[in-house]
Amino acid sequence: MTDLRLPVSVPSTALFTDQYELTMLQAALRDGTADRPCVFECFTRRLPEGRRYGVVAGTGRVLDAVEGFRFDAAQLDFLRERGIVDGPTLEWLAGFRFHGDVWGYPEGEVYFPGSPVLRVEGSFAECVLLETVILSIMNHDSAVAAAASRMSAAAGGRPLIEMGARRTHELSAVAAARAAYVGGFAATSDLAAGFRYGIPTTGTAAHAFTLLHDSERDAFTAQVESMGRGTTLLVDTYDVREAVRTAVEVAGPGLGAVRLDSGDLLLMAHRVRQQLDELGARDTKIVVTSDLDEYAIASLAAAPVDTYGVGTQLVTGSGHPTCSMVYKLVARATSTEPGAPLLPVAKRSTGGKSSVGGRKWAARRLDEDGFAAAEVLGTGEVPKDLAERLLPVPLVRAGSVIGREPLEAARARHIEARAALPLSATQLSRGEAVLPTEYL
Amino acid sequence: MTDLRLPVSVPSTALFTDQYELTMLQAALRDGTADRPCVFECFTRRLPEGRRYGVVAGTGRVLDAVEGFRFDAAQLDFLRERGIVDGPTLEWLAGFRFHGDVWGYPEGEVYFPGSPVLRVEGSFAECVLLETVILSIMNHDSAVAAAASRMSAAAGGRPLIEMGARRTHELSAVAAARAAYVGGFAATSDLAAGFRYGIPTTGTAAHAFTLLHDSERDAFTAQVESMGRGTTLLVDTYDVREAVRTAVEVAGPGLGAVRLDSGDLLLMAHRVRQQLDELGARDTKIVVTSDLDEYAIASLAAAPVDTYGVGTQLVTGSGHPTCSMVYKLVARATSTEPGAPLLPVAKRSTGGKSSVGGRKWAARRLDEDGFAAAEVLGTGEVPKDLAERLLPVPLVRAGSVIGREPLEAARARHIEARAALPLSATQLSRGEAVLPTEYL
Repeated sequence: MTDLRLPVSVPSTALFTDQYELTMLQAALRDGTADRPCVFECFTRRLPEGRRYGVVAGTGRVLDAVEGFRFDAAQLDFLRERGIVDGPTLEWLAGFRFHGDVWGYPEGEVYFPGSPVLRVEGSFAECVLLETVILSIMNHDSAVAAAASRMSAAAGGRPLIEMGARRTHELSAVAAARAAYVGGFAATSDLAAGFRYGIPTTGTAAHAFTLLHDSERDAFTAQVESMGRGTTLLVDTYDVREAVRTAVEVAGPGLGAVRLDSGDLLLMAHRVRQQLDELGARDTKIVVTSDLDEYAIASLAAAPVDTYGVGTQLVTGSGHPTCSMVYKLVARATSTEPGAPLLPVAKRSTGGKSSVGGRKWAARRLDEDGFAAAEVLGTGEVPKDLAERLLPVPLVRAGSVIGREPLEAARARHIEARAALPLSATQLSRGEAVLPTEYL
Repeated sequence: MTDLRLPVSVPSTALFTDQYELTMLQAALRDGTADRPCVFECFTRRLPEGRRYGVVAGTGRVLDAVEGFRFDAAQLDFLRERGIVDGPTLEWLAGFRFHGDVWGYPEGEVYFPGSPVLRVEGSFAECVLLETVILSIMNHDSAVAAAASRMSAAAGGRPLIEMGARRTHELSAVAAARAAYVGGFAATSDLAAGFRYGIPTTGTAAHAFTLLHDSERDAFTAQVESMGRGTTLLVDTYDVREAVRTAVEVAGPGLGAVRLDSGDLLLMAHRVRQQLDELGARDTKIVVTSDLDEYAIASLAAAPVDTYGVGTQLVTGSGHPTCSMVYKLVARATSTEPGAPLLPVAKRSTGGKSSVGGRKWAARRLDEDGFAAAEVLGTGEVPKDLAERLLPVPLVRAGSVIGREPLEAARARHIEARAALPLSATQLSRGEAVLPTEYL
């Protein structure tokens, strides 16, 4: 085995694919079933334990991935040299681009068990190839967005900063910052996320900067001279009380903020607030960071904290780093003849992995007060009272992306969708899905 | 905020960086401390709860990232337009490349609390910039490798296949397959991992392939005609007993393997083995997949299973998706004068985040039987009996990568390093680190 020494990035999205997708393709091309029209749905059988709703995130990245799903020469050489597929399949792959349709819940929307968050329609060949890349994106991004949503609900109106890049894969981190933004975060420390997605970025200094200097005062002075008095000074390298005093001496009472990154944050926030006020720095804000999760954030609700920085627990989905989405064939034509009927299909063996066959519509039923009351899925005609409440929107039509939108739209949609859920949705305690899923 | 519509991949590794690294750089360039010689160490304060050892993985990727850490024009434009750093800092970044030294535990080696798995030496400016990208890689890859190592120990000699791409970010998945290989896995289903790192790949068919066909027999026939009778047929779409009978009828007793992906795997493996034997397919193997972790693998030790496929629990670190590594300034010169002494430094405030200052050597002490007995770290002279047992090796010298090696070497090293640990290292039950960390 040799290390191919290729660049860190892979030139297209076409190899974010499990080998079995290509071997299925090869066998289906050979026996003529590859062109049968098919419907695949992406959904989850359950929410992570105790969670009350899921958050759709990654949809925009799926659209990029579908567009970038082309096999280049180096990739085809790899498949040939490894003998992964035969000649006719390689030829087919060389000309491949997706020509089918994708519908889905718009990004930022909430979802429940069974919700068809994406539906992919086209030939078996073109749909089966997208399985892994779609699941990678939706499982990762939706897991992070769900954690972000719980944290932003717990934070009330206080801003949250995503700081988890160091705790996850370097490109996972970029997608995590994006998903956190959808879920309600205000900014990220990750420059690549700012570069790639335009998310606001922020950041000031670490303990190393203080330790580099001959004194804390030297470090604070250097930072204020470089970044202005509006900067955030990190005050817990040595003694917090002394650091706060020095900080205000150096920057004056117009100091932007101080950051606490260790210790009993509840106690410290109160003490530091009092000290800042006594020093006349009434507008100086307090930023807290240090292994926060939604519970720690909630526990600081009554503390004089202005901003939360969250790392590890955000990028790892706060205990649920993936959300068990699957990508299943739910219907296929009985032949490749034009007009051949669509047959609902589903795995039938026992063992808890069965699913519901058929191409599904999905709608959210409201109660009299306008709150969401049920997630309704069906394969037949849509009842009249739900026709206006259908959730999926067209994202790709005949291979062309038509559902792209600014990330801000997904972020705004999430706030709105969450606000329309029953109030118990944002309880942090463990519970059941806040809406029942009904099949019609 | 606009979506910049740049490619999925980021052109260099230089923006896998928290903004505060650049703001610290700017302030340090301004006050003259940027050139102070510094020593940073990457280590973890503790192992994840219950774990007995850690596994170093990602080192090879860190070397790629250090080489690729250059700011290109688009990235510099972004920093300028956002006003993230000032003009002199932008100029400095435009010419940046790392000229320092990196030492580290070789990839695949085991580690314990405090082990300096990487040590980065150079000016403050050049070392501080690498913090986030180094931590992202080491935290992610080592977490996956640790889970892989536990699973491979539980599997005994049976091969393990990595199948988790769909459960994690698409590029995380590539790194996870690499880390799993270091930790003892035999192959991956992820084509991008095969392409990028040369890891063996494998894969046959999903339930969708059976459902696409008019009958299970049609599907099996198509697969065998396409891939030969050595293929693996998935037998749990409808009725397992019937599927196994059909599989052997279609492929003959020379059928390569059958795969079980749901249900009570222990019970099913015994039943299917018996059925295969009765049908004369004594050499047909049984592959099991379906939310396996190290405990499920161990529970199948006495079952007639030949190969395990592992997804979710592998790529999410089996409950510990990150391993809490930090990157800390441990020593710095008192000035930029040549020959200025190195001063050990460490955060001192209370709150549980303190660390041990000083540039450390690290060695593993053996007992009389040649088993590892302690992880010994120190800042002074190395005791004679440990001089031959030093763990860190040179990886980068004066900015040039000198520690690159084939991935196979890391994989072999891990097997050897784990075998030298006390026997309780591979117990699955929760416990303490199997070696004590001693500071001299």
